[in-house]
Amino acid sequence: MNLPSSLLENVVNEFAKLPGIGKKTALRLALVLLKKDMAEVDALADAIKNMRHEIRFCKKCGNISDDELCGICKQTSRKKQLVCVVENIRDVIAIESTQQFNGLYHVLGGVISPLDGIGPDQLNIESLTKRVDEDSVEELVFALSPNIQGDTTIFYISKKLANTPVKITTIARGIAFGGELEFADELTLARSIANRMPVEKYVNGM
Amino acid sequence: MNLPSSLLENVVNEFAKLPGIGKKTALRLALVLLKKDMAEVDALADAIKNMRHEIRFCKKCGNISDDELCGICKQTSRKKQLVCVVENIRDVIAIESTQQFNGLYHVLGGVISPLDGIGPDQLNIESLTKRVDEDSVEELVFALSPNIQGDTTIFYISKKLANTPVKITTIARGIAFGGELEFADELTLARSIANRMPVEKYVNGM
Repeated sequence: MNLPSSLLENVVNEFAKLPGIGKKTALRLALVLLKKDMAEVDALADAIKNMRHEIRFCKKCGNISDDELCGICKQTSRKKQLVCVVENIRDVIAIESTQQFNGLYHVLGGVISPLDGIGPDQLNIESLTKRVDEDSVEELVFALSPNIQGDTTIFYISKKLANTPVKITTIARGIAFGGELEFADELTLARSIANRMPVEKYVNGM
Repeated sequence: MNLPSSLLENVVNEFAKLPGIGKKTALRLALVLLKKDMAEVDALADAIKNMRHEIRFCKKCGNISDDELCGICKQTSRKKQLVCVVENIRDVIAIESTQQFNGLYHVLGGVISPLDGIGPDQLNIESLTKRVDEDSVEELVFALSPNIQGDTTIFYISKKLANTPVKITTIARGIAFGGELEFADELTLARSIANRMPVEKYVNGM
């Protein structure tokens, strides 16, 4: 693509570095910005800069935050003894939007994946074991991706905490609501049969 | 969506104002930016600001430009007497990418559309008629969208230039390459039959 201005070209190139944005979409976005008021465009640019420079991570759970402690850790109404362990911030947002969990979180920052060069030391595992001890956490609920890496991570952390009284659970796996049985993979189907549950518990599960 | 940080929320809201970007995509982009180096994020923000503040419009053709005259108008090898009239900058980029046109352009900035409140005065028509006169333009090729608004604009400008010797043409309309005859609309099909062309011209057309 041959662009008539190097200023435009810079914006197109920078936008196109973002995932899911190709050169054509980048050009469309840049031309939309060109038509907007200067104040609006500055607001976007400043918001991006401010976020990157000033955002902090909650020193307790690793969630992003404007402050030393994140909004969730600050809430006094939450059960401090119940901690949900997640991979990243998006998982926190997803679980929060269900409004079904009233404990705290712990953001690992990923899962153990030797092929990608991610070992336990790159993750917030040290701070988790410390937290279990200091806050006398009663239950850790693992909400990690259902794959080998996730399972490895659960196994690793469980072993580390074997000598503590903490109860370790994982979110239920099975056929999703609205899912078609015939399209479910064999492993999920097999597990959901093995972990079958009484109907009264299923009905009152929420 | 309940976000844990107002800094993040600002970026998500600003991104979501862009067309084709919803809240979920905006969040994904914001979290990608959070993981990038500060220098990279600043490069994006600065590119956006610089573009909006410093971009200029070619005083001859209305194309965007880093300078008083755009790169196309500066090229001495182009036929100055052949001018292609387009709606916007994207059309210039599209035609330039065909590498089949070696005249200059004139960007109207839109088409006449009374329903949207766009009259001839909001478009760069004054400068076009002046240019036809001053540069003794021999041919104006209209490459506007094939709809009522585009046709109205062509008609309006043709009338204004009726007393000048300039030849007025429009790009060919018909069935697109790769298009299926049976799916073409009636108007396009009827026009393409009315404007049928000798096969030798079609073959040598490029």
